Amino acid sequence: MHVWMNGRLLAREDAHVPVTDRGLLLGDGLFETMAVRNGEVCDLHGHLERLKSGLGVLRFGEAVDTDELGPAIKQYICSQKATCGVLRLTVTRGTGPRGLAPPAEVSPTLLMTLSPMPPRREAISLRIVTVTRRNEHSPLSRIKALPYLDNVLALLQARASGADEALLLNTRGAIACASAANIFVIRDGCLETPPIEDGALPGTTRARILSWAGEAGLAPREVSLSPQAVAGADHVFLTNSVSLVQEARDCEGRSLNRRAASAIDRLRSLLMSATQ
Amino acid sequence: MHVWMNGRLLAREDAHVPVTDRGLLLGDGLFETMAVRNGEVCDLHGHLERLKSGLGVLRFGEAVDTDELGPAIKQYICSQKATCGVLRLTVTRGTGPRGLAPPAEVSPTLLMTLSPMPPRREAISLRIVTVTRRNEHSPLSRIKALPYLDNVLALLQARASGADEALLLNTRGAIACASAANIFVIRDGCLETPPIEDGALPGTTRARILSWAGEAGLAPREVSLSPQAVAGADHVFLTNSVSLVQEARDCEGRSLNRRAASAIDRLRSLLMSATQ
Repeated sequence: MHVWMNGRLLAREDAHVPVTDRGLLLGDGLFETMAVRNGEVCDLHGHLERLKSGLGVLRFGEAVDTDELGPAIKQYICSQKATCGVLRLTVTRGTGPRGLAPPAEVSPTLLMTLSPMPPRREAISLRIVTVTRRNEHSPLSRIKALPYLDNVLALLQARASGADEALLLNTRGAIACASAANIFVIRDGCLETPPIEDGALPGTTRARILSWAGEAGLAPREVSLSPQAVAGADHVFLTNSVSLVQEARDCEGRSLNRRAASAIDRLRSLLMSATQ
Repeated sequence: MHVWMNGRLLAREDAHVPVTDRGLLLGDGLFETMAVRNGEVCDLHGHLERLKSGLGVLRFGEAVDTDELGPAIKQYICSQKATCGVLRLTVTRGTGPRGLAPPAEVSPTLLMTLSPMPPRREAISLRIVTVTRRNEHSPLSRIKALPYLDNVLALLQARASGADEALLLNTRGAIACASAANIFVIRDGCLETPPIEDGALPGTTRARILSWAGEAGLAPREVSLSPQAVAGADHVFLTNSVSLVQEARDCEGRSLNRRAASAIDRLRSLLMSATQ
């Protein structure tokens, strides 16, 4: 697989960024992780809209021609003859002088890579981590910014305790998200997920699941989630662009209920059948 | 100036990192910014100790031979015939597969650059920013991790409002730090700075200033700082490795007192005269 960088295809071993890139030095940039199925990006529009929103927050939207990104993504997939995989698009503020202040003229670094689609996992175990908290006071909790180190630490702690995934609390002690996924619970016919203000990333799959809840016989609700709400739910699952719907089997070492399997199957098949 | 990378000197235009570096993709790494004066790094020991502490938090300390870093830094400065400047050391977790989980074998990226020492600034104006909050619940607030995007946003907001520097509140509304500096106030013979638990980075200059307060006739206190405490202080200043002591002249558009100039001069000269 080649890497796409600023409009050029490069062999992976030739694909580098300068050591002055602000993405590397300061985490100053954004990314999107997109599933490719049947040669097409799933929900390309949703991903590009979130990227635009992030560029606005970071204030270098004028330096990135987002209208050109859609065609460039499609062309890249086509050039690699990719039918199924994971496409990551990374956008940094490019190079700059020493220090935090961005250069007056931003020349962004645009980067795309393709990776194999990971195998689907059985139901996973969750751990509510203590190593860090999700900062719902930061606008970075609402955009897909490069800094993912809190999430890396959360995942490391979960894995060290034998769990598959981490649940992060926000600074008020409500559950915000997993290390790389949104969380949903099904309870009494409702489909609940933490609101964006609680530090949940506005996941593209999260948005689609919320909009399709009715078709699975569920009433969608954005509501703060306590650890107790997770423990007592009828069903708990995580969502992201790659795994789509990932069921959880236990949390904090205690088995979770899995009483809404048919609703889960319905949501999964709605996601799988939707391409654009 | 050449760049030092994993033990090799490279021309700046040849110094690159692979697009799979986790520093670039996830902000997974650390850095130190050190002042070089008279051909020597100021407080090298303090910087290396903080780096070690950060490596422990990120759990890849075993992959970095920190004993070799001191000699490598000195050799790099010598090779560049640098007498005065800013040395940045960046350490990332190196390359890895897609996703958050680190590779089993970490091969870190080590990087050093030298930049000119910026000119000393007159007293600066401060703005308490609203765009984001410092997350004192994250261990990243206590190590010098690569993710500095919240700080970049803070600085952008301060600059957009005509101020020179941003003050960040933590999630409880106490002042934590500036975008790239610690904050101190002098009040009634006391030298006050926010404690680490409030989200203040354990700055190397901060530590030295606290230890030398007595020599400037001041009693050091680590105590939460409110915006009111800043507004009413006898003197307000910021510290970091490069600017050392940076006086503030106003905050939120209102003039600050500058009644402790002799103590400031004393602290500055103590810092300037200390090399190791």
